[in-house]
Amino acid sequence: MLFLLSGPSGVGKGTVRKALFKKNPHELLYSISATTRKPRRGEVDGRDYFFLNKEQFEKMINDGQMLEYAQYVNSYYGTPKTWIDEQRDQGNDVFMEIEVNGAMQVRAKVPDAILIFLLPPDLMQLRNRLELRGTESDEVINQRLKTAREEILMMTNYDYAVVNDKVDKAVKKVQTIIDAERLKANRLANSYIKILEG
Amino acid sequence: MLFLLSGPSGVGKGTVRKALFKKNPHELLYSISATTRKPRRGEVDGRDYFFLNKEQFEKMINDGQMLEYAQYVNSYYGTPKTWIDEQRDQGNDVFMEIEVNGAMQVRAKVPDAILIFLLPPDLMQLRNRLELRGTESDEVINQRLKTAREEILMMTNYDYAVVNDKVDKAVKKVQTIIDAERLKANRLANSYIKILEG
Repeated sequence: MLFLLSGPSGVGKGTVRKALFKKNPHELLYSISATTRKPRRGEVDGRDYFFLNKEQFEKMINDGQMLEYAQYVNSYYGTPKTWIDEQRDQGNDVFMEIEVNGAMQVRAKVPDAILIFLLPPDLMQLRNRLELRGTESDEVINQRLKTAREEILMMTNYDYAVVNDKVDKAVKKVQTIIDAERLKANRLANSYIKILEG
Repeated sequence: MLFLLSGPSGVGKGTVRKALFKKNPHELLYSISATTRKPRRGEVDGRDYFFLNKEQFEKMINDGQMLEYAQYVNSYYGTPKTWIDEQRDQGNDVFMEIEVNGAMQVRAKVPDAILIFLLPPDLMQLRNRLELRGTESDEVINQRLKTAREEILMMTNYDYAVVNDKVDKAVKKVQTIIDAERLKANRLANSYIKILEG
């Protein structure tokens, strides 16, 4: 299985992912991204990123070896495809942390990927929308509603949605999703069929 | 949401259902079946079953008030539809325990029902199929394989599959499925859309 954790910029994807792997370090394999930006202090090649130069990265794009990629601030970021394919062929579950545009690229190429959308907690505050009136300007309220609509629209392209109000609560929910996906009847049936067929 | 726990006869559906409700008595509403058989000692009308006579039951069938029904040993068993519809309209989650034929009837009428298949633990023993050779006759082995194939075929009509090796483990898995279904993005998006639209 291929799990994707995605969501709006700044929602805390990295924090949730790191906490998830700290809790269950051996259950999932983390897909390491490739980038052409320079390593930051403390970053290790092959652990935090695969650090490539521009020519290497563009060759991989042209060879169809990037599952998804994007350019930010003159640097490429992307997900090498070969390693993920190898792990999935071996029956390992892979976990990716990825921006929303990249998530949609993966959805198109890997239809059975499981997409989890991490939501900012302030979307929850919409419940108190009427209470905001009086304390916030119409402009602020309208901007919040606009952002909320965009995030809700994004969310409908995902399988699951998790509010990141508290990191440990969000991690627990992501783990619940992973556990439930492992109980999907078709997956279990396929593994039994393989056993029956020897 | 409507959850169905089903599986082969004798797999322990009732035991798992009772243990689930003992653990989480207020989170789900249990759909009480109707039957025309006589109450057994200790059974209470409206708690264990709705006890109806044959005329009442057949009138409900004819009025389209049975979500599913079947006849066993000259008695009717079925699920009254009105109560389930009312609960779901109020946003409550309903849980049913049901035979496999009934589950397929519900699937046809309620496409968004979530179907959980409870598996007997001996299907797991297929993993040791080769070890059985020598200790069991070919006839016994072939019968086991035939039953296993039928159960696997049934399983593919379900959303999730849970092995009932230990009751508390099975209950925990059913609870995981319920929790994960509550994190489905479309369900959350719909509730947000309702809030946004006031």
